[in-house]
Amino acid sequence: MTDRLEAQFAFLNEADRLKSVLRATTLCDASRPENSGEHSWHLALYALVLADQAGPGVNIDRVIRMLLLHDLVEIDVGDVPIHSQNGTAHGSAETQAAEARAAERIFGLLPGDLRDDLRALWEEFEAAETPDAVFAKSLDRVQPVMQNLACGGGTWATYDVTFDQLESRVGVKIARGAPRLWDWVRCKVRPWFG
Amino acid sequence: MTDRLEAQFAFLNEADRLKSVLRATTLCDASRPENSGEHSWHLALYALVLADQAGPGVNIDRVIRMLLLHDLVEIDVGDVPIHSQNGTAHGSAETQAAEARAAERIFGLLPGDLRDDLRALWEEFEAAETPDAVFAKSLDRVQPVMQNLACGGGTWATYDVTFDQLESRVGVKIARGAPRLWDWVRCKVRPWFG
Ligand SMILES: [Ca+2]
Repeated sequence: MTDRLEAQFAFLNEADRLKSVLRATTLCDASRPENSGEHSWHLALYALVLADQAGPGVNIDRVIRMLLLHDLVEIDVGDVPIHSQNGTAHGSAETQAAEARAAERIFGLLPGDLRDDLRALWEEFEAAETPDAVFAKSLDRVQPVMQNLACGGGTWATYDVTFDQLESRVGVKIARGAPRLWDWVRCKVRPWFG
Repeated sequence: MTDRLEAQFAFLNEADRLKSVLRATTLCDASRPENSGEHSWHLALYALVLADQAGPGVNIDRVIRMLLLHDLVEIDVGDVPIHSQNGTAHGSAETQAAEARAAERIFGLLPGDLRDDLRALWEEFEAAETPDAVFAKSLDRVQPVMQNLACGGGTWATYDVTFDQLESRVGVKIARGAPRLWDWVRCKVRPWFG
């Protein structure tokens, strides 16, 4: 028991560091960059509130679990903004390899059973193939769009993004898991791009 | 559909403000105060990782949902530190009345079905009677203890807390939902108080 709790808290204390990983996106009031810990909370709340946008076969509680874990690898790798380096850095082979090493280290702090379960959930999210992972990815893409809209442009201005780039880098992935949601959000954001 | 999404996002954008509510507790590295948004994320992760500390009849997914919502009223009321005003401010009648008004306003942004469901979950947490709520409360009490321990004292030093005060304000509530967890944490924190 004691050794198990030591391992559980080694992981939970390490997870605290995600609160110091800054994203390109800001809070809705643009007062400061959002960190990846509070971003993960907000996404879990998105899943709870937008559950009716999920397709059949989606288990919202599994989606929430995935979203709670999905950014932990950023403790080692940092956040790679989707529009940075003209959209080429996010999801590159180098980033993926670094994230796999980070997952090995961070989930490896846990007792074996939890390590395997939570790492499998993270890998399912990354693979974006199951209905739960596809919906979770849609929410991860739509939240920064709503933050940008609330603060008057945000990373669209920072990275000089066009509407076509938004549609191909972000919209397509939102639509994959939540098509009606993207229809609605698309109409909201279109005017910003003039 | 459109009106429903307007209401869902009115709530989700309002929730963003919880990231600007500061707690007395700091991050583990003491670099800055923790905010209530990232705290809520950390607690949900606690529930996921410490599920084996829950008693029979606890549904961890409901606990996670409760923890995601439990601090939203602080957008209006702010965080009331457990050790402030010599332990008397937290849970006072005034605080409870203000939190009920905040819940009315904030959950009231949602479509009616979601408003009722999520508000009921928040009220269940506040009442601390069901097994799910009792376990959620235990986690809410144990996380600041672990943060204080990691950063060398934190709010115990700020508010000049004694071990007996920690035991009565915090330990009793941790033990109620997670007795073995408090046994373990108690041994960890005892030496700090000399
Ligand atoms: Ca990310």
